[in-house]
Amino acid sequence: MASPLIEPVARLIEAFSRLPGVGPKTAQRLTYHLLRAPEAEARALATALVDVREQVVFCETCFNISDAPTCPICRDGSRDQRRLCVVEEPLDVLALDRTGEFRGLYHVLHGAISPIDGIGPDRLRIAELLRRVGAAEADGRPFEEVILATNPTLEGEATAMYLDERLDGHVGSVTRIARGIPVGGDLEYADEVTLIRALQGRRSLAERR
Amino acid sequence: MASPLIEPVARLIEAFSRLPGVGPKTAQRLTYHLLRAPEAEARALATALVDVREQVVFCETCFNISDAPTCPICRDGSRDQRRLCVVEEPLDVLALDRTGEFRGLYHVLHGAISPIDGIGPDRLRIAELLRRVGAAEADGRPFEEVILATNPTLEGEATAMYLDERLDGHVGSVTRIARGIPVGGDLEYADEVTLIRALQGRRSLAERR
Repeated sequence: MASPLIEPVARLIEAFSRLPGVGPKTAQRLTYHLLRAPEAEARALATALVDVREQVVFCETCFNISDAPTCPICRDGSRDQRRLCVVEEPLDVLALDRTGEFRGLYHVLHGAISPIDGIGPDRLRIAELLRRVGAAEADGRPFEEVILATNPTLEGEATAMYLDERLDGHVGSVTRIARGIPVGGDLEYADEVTLIRALQGRRSLAERR
Repeated sequence: MASPLIEPVARLIEAFSRLPGVGPKTAQRLTYHLLRAPEAEARALATALVDVREQVVFCETCFNISDAPTCPICRDGSRDQRRLCVVEEPLDVLALDRTGEFRGLYHVLHGAISPIDGIGPDRLRIAELLRRVGAAEADGRPFEEVILATNPTLEGEATAMYLDERLDGHVGSVTRIARGIPVGGDLEYADEVTLIRALQGRRSLAERR
């Protein structure tokens, strides 16, 4: 019995299926879409895929993605050079920077400590972070603040605690992003841990005036 | 203010965003995944994309996707040559054929009649279907059965009704796939039209024995 699925189609479905969050059904739909989409659309995607691997490197300073040895953020002299925000992933830089609330520098760890997955501090860009912080300290201009913006997950919290210990005394202050009820969220549906964090993180309204 | 998003990354996010069902957040996630995935994974996807467009054609007989002028199903002499199943999309062929319940031939319309979207019968492979059916009739071996397996949507039903009119008298019988409660489904949550169809399509249990 001949399969009705021809080889190049099967191969594209297979390649799409390997992407995170793309199941076999979605992979099929994407494949059939590209079969009928304008030739240019399929080609643009293929070219972008190759280019992204060939042209994108990691910044030698902060390990964010970059098109040059030093990324646009690290090159930008107008940013606050004394504040450093530590995140897990390049996407986090994008999300935080888009808010405009933070105009300092970043450091991308490329993950979080997770003993279960065999990811210790040595698998992350932590040694590089400590060297960067140490170099600033040695220059007599230590970072005023390092914001630990790892995710509020078990792994992200463990990473933040680990970093806090290592950074303490070498920078002005180590802070952690607030955990609480998301804006637009509903107390009724918040989990217990989030509620506890929201209570612990409560601030006097006078502070906001 | 320099954007933290570099050009090749922005371009890949943009290319992914054009795919159906892929929003900007998903496009970002896929892009960052491919930045860190093994080089081979990104390259396999890029190659598969180009190959699928270069190597895949539509079967000259049934208009299913194919790697040759005649597709594997139309080439397969062991299949029932006197039964024809009409579907909207190549994916429908895949879904139906996988069941093993139908071992005849297919005809892919590449859509359904939808006056609102300006899709009339002339935009679909209907003329080719009528020629195919007419040729079999002229050969003195008309199709015994044409199964109309378009979707049970407004457009699919309109297409089935249109085809029924055009095919009537030129084939042994024209049938329509059953509409009803999906297996594992729940009557309580079924919509009214589906319930009506399920009742209209009821069959004597004696038929199944």
